[in-house]
Amino acid sequence: MRSYISEFVGTALLLAIVAGSGVMGETLGAGNAAVALLGNSIATGAGLYVLIVLLGPISGAHFNPVVTLMFWKLGYLDLKKMLGYWACQFTGAIAGIWLTHLMFSLPIIQESTKVRTGLGIWVSEFISTLVLLAVIHIGDKEAKDKVPMLVALTVTAGYWFTSSTFFCNPAVTFARSLTDTFVGIAPENILGFVIPQIIALILILKIIKK
Amino acid sequence: MRSYISEFVGTALLLAIVAGSGVMGETLGAGNAAVALLGNSIATGAGLYVLIVLLGPISGAHFNPVVTLMFWKLGYLDLKKMLGYWACQFTGAIAGIWLTHLMFSLPIIQESTKVRTGLGIWVSEFISTLVLLAVIHIGDKEAKDKVPMLVALTVTAGYWFTSSTFFCNPAVTFARSLTDTFVGIAPENILGFVIPQIIALILILKIIKK
Amino acid sequence: MRSYISEFVGTALLLAIVAGSGVMGETLGAGNAAVALLGNSIATGAGLYVLIVLLGPISGAHFNPVVTLMFWKLGYLDLKKMLGYWACQFTGAIAGIWLTHLMFSLPIIQESTKVRTGLGIWVSEFISTLVLLAVIHIGDKEAKDKVPMLVALTVTAGYWFTSSTFFCNPAVTFARSLTDTFVGIAPENILGFVIPQIIALILILKIIKK
Amino acid sequence: MRSYISEFVGTALLLAIVAGSGVMGETLGAGNAAVALLGNSIATGAGLYVLIVLLGPISGAHFNPVVTLMFWKLGYLDLKKMLGYWACQFTGAIAGIWLTHLMFSLPIIQESTKVRTGLGIWVSEFISTLVLLAVIHIGDKEAKDKVPMLVALTVTAGYWFTSSTFFCNPAVTFARSLTDTFVGIAPENILGFVIPQIIALILILKIIKK
Repeated sequence: MRSYISEFVGTALLLAIVAGSGVMGETLGAGNAAVALLGNSIATGAGLYVLIVLLGPISGAHFNPVVTLMFWKLGYLDLKKMLGYWACQFTGAIAGIWLTHLMFSLPIIQESTKVRTGLGIWVSEFISTLVLLAVIHIGDKEAKDKVPMLVALTVTAGYWFTSSTFFCNPAVTFARSLTDTFVGIAPENILGFVIPQIIALILILKIIKK
Repeated sequence: MRSYISEFVGTALLLAIVAGSGVMGETLGAGNAAVALLGNSIATGAGLYVLIVLLGPISGAHFNPVVTLMFWKLGYLDLKKMLGYWACQFTGAIAGIWLTHLMFSLPIIQESTKVRTGLGIWVSEFISTLVLLAVIHIGDKEAKDKVPMLVALTVTAGYWFTSSTFFCNPAVTFARSLTDTFVGIAPENILGFVIPQIIALILILKIIKK
Repeated sequence: MRSYISEFVGTALLLAIVAGSGVMGETLGAGNAAVALLGNSIATGAGLYVLIVLLGPISGAHFNPVVTLMFWKLGYLDLKKMLGYWACQFTGAIAGIWLTHLMFSLPIIQESTKVRTGLGIWVSEFISTLVLLAVIHIGDKEAKDKVPMLVALTVTAGYWFTSSTFFCNPAVTFARSLTDTFVGIAPENILGFVIPQIIALILILKIIKK
Repeated sequence: MRSYISEFVGTALLLAIVAGSGVMGETLGAGNAAVALLGNSIATGAGLYVLIVLLGPISGAHFNPVVTLMFWKLGYLDLKKMLGYWACQFTGAIAGIWLTHLMFSLPIIQESTKVRTGLGIWVSEFISTLVLLAVIHIGDKEAKDKVPMLVALTVTAGYWFTSSTFFCNPAVTFARSLTDTFVGIAPENILGFVIPQIIALILILKIIKK
């Protein structure tokens, strides 16, 4: 039970940090989106470090259905727990978006109109997920105590060097379609993100098993 | 006696960092408030890390009446010490604001006109305090040597993802009503911050005791 | 074999981070190149830390022909391995640039028109390489577990304090001539970077051997 | 002999980082001085961490006549060594400024016209030096392995929260009068910085001895 609460709360806070810092940057940034992305990426990295250090020992701090799927395939958890994690991650992600809207006095129910599509973006999302899963897998085996910092800095860098800005996460992708702010994604672009995420997972699993 | 000096000096320096970096960012930021917030949040995180590493062993580095109240409720200090800490935190916070005004050649005695009110902000302040107290409590029990970094990064992220910008602290809230700069809060908005801070504390204590 | 893959992938990702964050900063930065450089330098430092922690145990995480040459001269690897590393570093660097172009939907094949020349820049590149090699050599001997952080922060600072923005790397220099974006360098300016890099290496080796 | 070289090289690089990142930020910052200060403060913190980790074991990594004077008063080095350190620090600081001018193709010999004076600034410089010396002294006794990070983050925060931007160092102050760039200080304002630095040292020594 504690692990489910951990995944729900962790994913909710992750989304609140991602979306809230995006709203803040966009609102204050005087039209300079790079400044907004700086705040967004620094806040997300800082927040992820804290969430992974504190919730990692409780639930593994996945906050990501693709990560949970990888660990299930590797035998770290059973099917029932995976499905439970997924439910917590998707509902947590949505809760995080709605909490952000509540905090910033925006309409709770929104739908993003931000277009994120095209071959470049799909390749970017594939590479992003490949990198994230590799960092988690290698870090977990070779430098376990550094995983919170490794994941945090990977995401901070990822926001900057990928054209898709490093979603890597179906729950995050879906929830971000529910906010028409800096970090949103139009619902019709979701599949173009989730499919590369899953292909990256399949590839990682093939590489690991060799 | 050393612990009282530590709480006074630490809270004073915390406020000087918060307010001073805000003045600096606002003065130099050419109207881009996101750049000001970047400097503000990075400086506060950096400074908090240093203050907690160095003063933590002396007084616990609370710098926050709500944190002191939590530790009193958990039996870490007695009523007399709590009241002494409170006195040091409130006077230290005010001293820090006045020191900032002195350093930046501003009128020492000021009153903020910055409106920070509304349901969104109150919810934000409740969530902020909940997060801060949870990070301190869980960090203290599970990752004691990482607490300075955890608290510093929590506050850096908090400045960005919450609409109230993560006050979480009645002494900070009161002292910030005494500066009409970037980080100020109008006196009539203080209660709207302190009440959610206290409700968050009550909720955390209920969760811990279960 | 694993070490060659590590050098290829690491150098490719390093270039993708360098070039991708440059494109992102330039695109979003509303004409403020200092904001672009902030994103560029923070992302590169964050990414380098991750790459060195994870790939260091596999290949040493050189990602740089001059570093490999230094370690060959110091007897850490043989001639055949050095040449293999060089091949991986140059092809990896080019692959990283092309991956960035693909992700950002830019023409894959480009040639930089960015002029980076003059005595100041040549001196800067000499000093940069001297500093990088000294940090790697001293760090490797005196503070091995801190090398990832030392190199990452050296590069983050280096982007800012040198007029050549700290290339320090013939593979990086050549590959950056293949992108007409923020981080490009015109092909005719390559030699003016590579020669100081090699002179710095020769000087470092002389100092070490004394 | 190695310790003298360490103080010379370390102080020279410190000044090159401070001045070079200032020039870079000012040149690229499109008139937004807060962005310049962000680059300046992040680069200085990052560089200081590296310099203190690598040169600390060789010379103590003072790079600051006031710090050397404090350690002499505390009996860590003798008079002759202190005078030698001072010579290295002043000449190194000047060399660092001139190296920056050379790298950025600016006239080598300059004189600053930047006015930094007034009661607020003098108080600020007194508080800055008090904080820096206290961090070094307490850190050295209570958290020796964290000193590089503590000093680096203190300076990063210090650039932001003090109106004098945390010089704290007579060699740095003098050398910065020799550059008419972002980080300069007009020669006639030097004494107004050095006197508070010395008063802060005297006060720290009084507090330590009690």
